[in-house]
Amino acid sequence: MKKKDRSMYSDDSLVLHTDAYQINMIYTYWKKGLDQKPVVFEAYFRKMPFNNGYVVYTGLERLVKALQGLHFSADDLAYLASLETYEPDFLTYLKNWHLTATIRSAYEGEVMFNHEPLLQVDGPLVDAQLLETLLLNIINFQTLISTKAARIASVTTGQPLLEFGTRRAQELDAALWGTRAAFIGGFDATSNVRAGKLFNIPISGTHAHALVQAYQNDYDAFLAYAQTHHDVVFLVDTFDTLKSGVPTAIRVAKELGDQINFQGVRIDSGDMAYLSKKVRAMLDEAGFQDAKIYASNDLDENTILNLKIQGAKIDVWGIGTKLITAFDQPALGAVYKMVSIDGQDTIKLSNNVEKISTPGKKQIWRITDKKDGKSEGDYLTTSDDDPRNLETLHMFDPNHPVISKDIQDFKATPILHDIFVDGQLVYDLPDIFTIKEYANNSLNNLWDEYKRILNPETYPVDLSQALYDGKMKLINQIRNQVKEMSK
Amino acid sequence: MKKKDRSMYSDDSLVLHTDAYQINMIYTYWKKGLDQKPVVFEAYFRKMPFNNGYVVYTGLERLVKALQGLHFSADDLAYLASLETYEPDFLTYLKNWHLTATIRSAYEGEVMFNHEPLLQVDGPLVDAQLLETLLLNIINFQTLISTKAARIASVTTGQPLLEFGTRRAQELDAALWGTRAAFIGGFDATSNVRAGKLFNIPISGTHAHALVQAYQNDYDAFLAYAQTHHDVVFLVDTFDTLKSGVPTAIRVAKELGDQINFQGVRIDSGDMAYLSKKVRAMLDEAGFQDAKIYASNDLDENTILNLKIQGAKIDVWGIGTKLITAFDQPALGAVYKMVSIDGQDTIKLSNNVEKISTPGKKQIWRITDKKDGKSEGDYLTTSDDDPRNLETLHMFDPNHPVISKDIQDFKATPILHDIFVDGQLVYDLPDIFTIKEYANNSLNNLWDEYKRILNPETYPVDLSQALYDGKMKLINQIRNQVKEMSK
Repeated sequence: MKKKDRSMYSDDSLVLHTDAYQINMIYTYWKKGLDQKPVVFEAYFRKMPFNNGYVVYTGLERLVKALQGLHFSADDLAYLASLETYEPDFLTYLKNWHLTATIRSAYEGEVMFNHEPLLQVDGPLVDAQLLETLLLNIINFQTLISTKAARIASVTTGQPLLEFGTRRAQELDAALWGTRAAFIGGFDATSNVRAGKLFNIPISGTHAHALVQAYQNDYDAFLAYAQTHHDVVFLVDTFDTLKSGVPTAIRVAKELGDQINFQGVRIDSGDMAYLSKKVRAMLDEAGFQDAKIYASNDLDENTILNLKIQGAKIDVWGIGTKLITAFDQPALGAVYKMVSIDGQDTIKLSNNVEKISTPGKKQIWRITDKKDGKSEGDYLTTSDDDPRNLETLHMFDPNHPVISKDIQDFKATPILHDIFVDGQLVYDLPDIFTIKEYANNSLNNLWDEYKRILNPETYPVDLSQALYDGKMKLINQIRNQVKEMSK
Repeated sequence: MKKKDRSMYSDDSLVLHTDAYQINMIYTYWKKGLDQKPVVFEAYFRKMPFNNGYVVYTGLERLVKALQGLHFSADDLAYLASLETYEPDFLTYLKNWHLTATIRSAYEGEVMFNHEPLLQVDGPLVDAQLLETLLLNIINFQTLISTKAARIASVTTGQPLLEFGTRRAQELDAALWGTRAAFIGGFDATSNVRAGKLFNIPISGTHAHALVQAYQNDYDAFLAYAQTHHDVVFLVDTFDTLKSGVPTAIRVAKELGDQINFQGVRIDSGDMAYLSKKVRAMLDEAGFQDAKIYASNDLDENTILNLKIQGAKIDVWGIGTKLITAFDQPALGAVYKMVSIDGQDTIKLSNNVEKISTPGKKQIWRITDKKDGKSEGDYLTTSDDDPRNLETLHMFDPNHPVISKDIQDFKATPILHDIFVDGQLVYDLPDIFTIKEYANNSLNNLWDEYKRILNPETYPVDLSQALYDGKMKLINQIRNQVKEMSK
């Protein structure tokens, strides 16, 4: 193949952002006339990240925008032709391909749990197969970061949270979409200017050590910054926080008085608990009780909790690496499984009980108490079922059916919504502030026991009797098939 | 600000892919007339990832392409204006900004070590400040993944390595650039079709569990695949590896005979050590001694090493999550520090010895033995120094100067090369195969002791006497300044 210079590597071919086996399977389906077979695939998690009690689901907007334009460009087809694996007619078929599937999803910002579909692709086999890798890549990452952000926000309880991770993010997209996800999960602003521009997220940041190095001393640097900006936060640890940084910040703040809005000082190294208490006392003594102390040094929910226990006087948290890479668990393992083909339910078996999929096209119902709106659990049904008119709902643990409860005076809210119907977008994407508020409300409806960062209670995700019975029947059927085979 | 729909979020504004404080500092520099002051900044690591003995430096090509087009678009300027922080003249200044700095870098694929510059920006303060975040974001990630890939390749010793991580990568760029970095670090192919198209990396992949689910049994699925593809690898663990998957693979391979190239079977779950030995025996017995066993299930250098010790019969390794996210250490902490301003050396102090920067614009010399070409260590000098004509080179550990050696019959090769001179690209980007070979040679010149994956020896990165003396002088000078301040 003639090598082509694709200098700026533009995103012209998201349809090829997939695993090679997807295209190879589609080739087989097409050759065998199976490509239009109606199927349902569902994406779900089997294990919460960080041993958390929930995830904050994000990534839908990114996915919707990617799917809207999805097609095989001439360039893509030329590349596939160069592989010499496919008949020319197949390339023509791909050229004419466009999305015709129906796609249902939870709303962005929804709190979600193990073993329930976040997203459902209901359409021809070709569509379902083609989208798998792209959609998992998108929702796995954003959901991971939103969830990490929500964990951090749960320990800072209302104090401002700033996302500072771009330089340590896993490439440019991760910085960009990670900060969007963090904003939805509970952060207030980002240092990434491009994210500010693209997503309307507030941006934040004043100066770095380099400014002080450029002036060779704190005083000249702080003065220069204060003379050229109204809102100022001085970074005080370039040479010595307590001996030079903070006294100089106070001096400049006093000299410039009302000419500036002295918001506070930022500490980026050293013993944060010790320093922040000393710095607080120095600021208070100088009459700057309203000046805030910003901290930014490899922080996450665990270090923050420890700092708080030590009585650290930190008001604003700048969080980088640990958030933007989800450092303690940098991957989320959403899977995407076929649950029905040609109207027949299907299953993926495994020796590991947790890995057995639940067959059938589903709806999730969030069951809440009519009085206080708090969640009782999620109830999965076949998609044509509707528990809203039931007087009493029998909920049982699908792995331990004896654990059950009967619920009355409940509200059942469907969680999966049509996003694309027959390939057409039918959903108005909300703005990011609406999504953030949705996430916040969704979290508020959860009992605290599900939200603590260590050893949370397991939120019930139960199956309707029909779903449960269908699953058991299929498991037995397949086991018998395998037994037959090995005779 | 009127919110604008930037539907496809195209990469039009990489210049804004930076931290807000960079723009705020540049504003101060510009207002104070410092923006054109000549400075040198250097990017370097202080700690190897994974406690490895080296990194494989990658990311340069991505950076070069980003820098070539870097400018503030009308859209960027409109966004910055909307912040109401900057004078209109500053926006005109940014509009007219273009890169004029000289940028030096190690070649892509070079093996690099702690405390030596990978990249050097030598030019006006505005350029050096503007590029920081973008360049760190790019080189931190790619270098991390190349290094992880090289660790994995060091235990598979020539067996094919396939990158399968897209669905678990941290967003799209990470999947794409991560697989490029993995290829340079020692991988042979990727499942990501887009990466194949953009970077000319071989792609790999046959079928997934979904194909078997679509046909409801192994036989029909394998047969359909084999009838539509020449090269086939059957995934054998959908129902039962030993009872159904492998016997069926053998049956289909026998039925189709020479019509297909039966490359082998892939196992994606279960006890890999046990299964692979059983599967090997079954294949051999059926006369398929050449068929390979592919394994892919949360593997990395540690699990691979364990499988090998257990005598697992695996020939080809598919590596996903653990590689593409660098799961055991998902961030690399390259920093970027000012080492000179206005011709004067400058330093960033810290209470932590490791965090003190080495002042001055540098060159790195790789010192090798003239006889066998093996590395003796790296020798850092001021940029105008040249050790090539020395008879004897005195190398000493800058943290423990008594540890020293005198070297003769050495070759000294400069590591930093001009990439941009005065903003103009002067470097021809090599193709990816050349870079991969360069990385391979660079690794081969390292003694094995530096390359083992557990507790490697520390490779010497030494300072010339002049660099060392300059650093000590500056440390004392600044400590005296701080002492003066606090009197």
